[in-house]
Amino acid sequence: MIQSPYLLFIGDATDPLSIKMARSVADWRAEKCLGEYALPGCEVTTGCPALDIDQAAERGAKSFILGFANSGGHLDERYLEHILKAIDAGMDIVSGLHDKLSNYPELVKQAQDADVRLVDIRHPSLKLKTGTGKKRSGKRLLTVGTDCSVGKMYTSLSLTRALQQNDISATFRATGQSGILVAGEGIPIDCVIADFISGAAEVLSPDNTPEHWDIIEGQGSLSHPAFAGVSLGLLHGSQPDALVICHALKRSHMRGLPHVPQPSIEETINLNVSAARLTNPAAQVIGIAVNTSAVTDAEATAWCQQTSAQFNLPCVDPVRHGVDELVRQL
Amino acid sequence: MIQSPYLLFIGDATDPLSIKMARSVADWRAEKCLGEYALPGCEVTTGCPALDIDQAAERGAKSFILGFANSGGHLDERYLEHILKAIDAGMDIVSGLHDKLSNYPELVKQAQDADVRLVDIRHPSLKLKTGTGKKRSGKRLLTVGTDCSVGKMYTSLSLTRALQQNDISATFRATGQSGILVAGEGIPIDCVIADFISGAAEVLSPDNTPEHWDIIEGQGSLSHPAFAGVSLGLLHGSQPDALVICHALKRSHMRGLPHVPQPSIEETINLNVSAARLTNPAAQVIGIAVNTSAVTDAEATAWCQQTSAQFNLPCVDPVRHGVDELVRQL
Repeated sequence: MIQSPYLLFIGDATDPLSIKMARSVADWRAEKCLGEYALPGCEVTTGCPALDIDQAAERGAKSFILGFANSGGHLDERYLEHILKAIDAGMDIVSGLHDKLSNYPELVKQAQDADVRLVDIRHPSLKLKTGTGKKRSGKRLLTVGTDCSVGKMYTSLSLTRALQQNDISATFRATGQSGILVAGEGIPIDCVIADFISGAAEVLSPDNTPEHWDIIEGQGSLSHPAFAGVSLGLLHGSQPDALVICHALKRSHMRGLPHVPQPSIEETINLNVSAARLTNPAAQVIGIAVNTSAVTDAEATAWCQQTSAQFNLPCVDPVRHGVDELVRQL
Repeated sequence: MIQSPYLLFIGDATDPLSIKMARSVADWRAEKCLGEYALPGCEVTTGCPALDIDQAAERGAKSFILGFANSGGHLDERYLEHILKAIDAGMDIVSGLHDKLSNYPELVKQAQDADVRLVDIRHPSLKLKTGTGKKRSGKRLLTVGTDCSVGKMYTSLSLTRALQQNDISATFRATGQSGILVAGEGIPIDCVIADFISGAAEVLSPDNTPEHWDIIEGQGSLSHPAFAGVSLGLLHGSQPDALVICHALKRSHMRGLPHVPQPSIEETINLNVSAARLTNPAAQVIGIAVNTSAVTDAEATAWCQQTSAQFNLPCVDPVRHGVDELVRQL
């Protein structure tokens, strides 16, 4: 559990993609974000008001969020002095980097002295068990993708919000760093020990009331040579009643792998439905969510209409068209 | 890398299944095993000569193998005095338990003083990367199963030995604790971080000469709700040219899950071939290996003949019939 409100630390980032964690929480949980703390040279913003550490502490900030990422996931030593200052100001430190905060003795000592926590989102401390495949009560939807980074988190959050606005009880279940920060809790599914992937997914969406929907953030793709194992364990443990296929237009190949072509929507439907039925024979695809940002409005609408007709399923861009058509299926 | 020769410590085990690790290495690498060390009350044996720690040290034992397992994978504190004694005698300590040897300060200190290693097989220290799906040179065979514990390690070791006896260059690639102990190296694939399953499998069977066969020990089953993610990542990373389907007769349900029925051989073939083709379009099943220990010789032979005819593939029990029919396919 991550305590809010947050101060979002974005360092001296210059690439908007590198502050995805900070931007996700600013976009989806603005009420949790007191402000952002940037260093000289920073060229990007979350849109939150600029605050320094003392100002944020005065306003009650409970967590100092390392809201940036870099390739390798290393913690830049230049940032340590700012983290130490936030600890002194009484904030928990929350990191989604590969490098563990708890590997820095000076941070550990200072955190003990100040009685605050070092929260390494990517290093789950939860004791996990292997999956059981046993049916749980309540209803579940999982977003699955043709590829990584096609909008599964955005679609899941949009669906959760839309269900709640329709007075349907729904909970967003986070499986990645950004989602965890938005939700304030969750399990970083690609960071658990391989033996426990589906067991972790089972714990993530426990028994619930019969009409409740858990909207589970998907990860990776069954067609991605690097991450399909994670996607399959998450699918089996989630036992989804409903699947939403997520896709992004104008990708020529799988993310990070120029030699691997993208699967078709049809393949993605077939792969996911047949795998999902191992733990939920009633699993079905209820719609398609497409990131159409690479094309014009008219092209987006045409593509969605054609795809909708082809598969006899609603097909929308959650950003351009909203997700009401998907929610009606639930 | 685990240094041989070994002294196999089996504690006071009473269940032959609980010393699978010790028995596997005694069966498959007798030349690496100086003897076994049992405590009063032990009712099982690996068949190796009984030796105490001093005797084994005199004969040059380099590793003291914790050759037992228990549910939970905990290290019984009663065993610490024996481990400490083996450290004093200059042996590395090798454990496949969940509990890490390095979590016991007295073991860590004594190992430092004696300049020996604490080797936690289940806690790989290797720096791993995510998979790439890039084709590697050399040939690969992966054993895959209808379920867990159906003979994938035994089949893989049998195939490796038979290929070598036919003067075909072949290497057994271990992915579980027992296999790692037999091979002296390997990667415990179900113990890596989920993100790195297929990346670990890629590292496990690196580029090789064109005619070389890596025989990769499979894990779990694509139809097992707990472990399918591991199986899929291993399959994608292994890029097998050849698959051998492993099966055990007279199982009524998936191991550990009484509510989950077993898949058919046909389903298992289809699932594995279609998934394997993501990273190796030429992947094909070359035969079926069955553990027939639950039936008579005559029933075993009849079952294998019928199955062989049904799928037009060789079908053997590696223990009863050997694996020559499978090797001829390679």
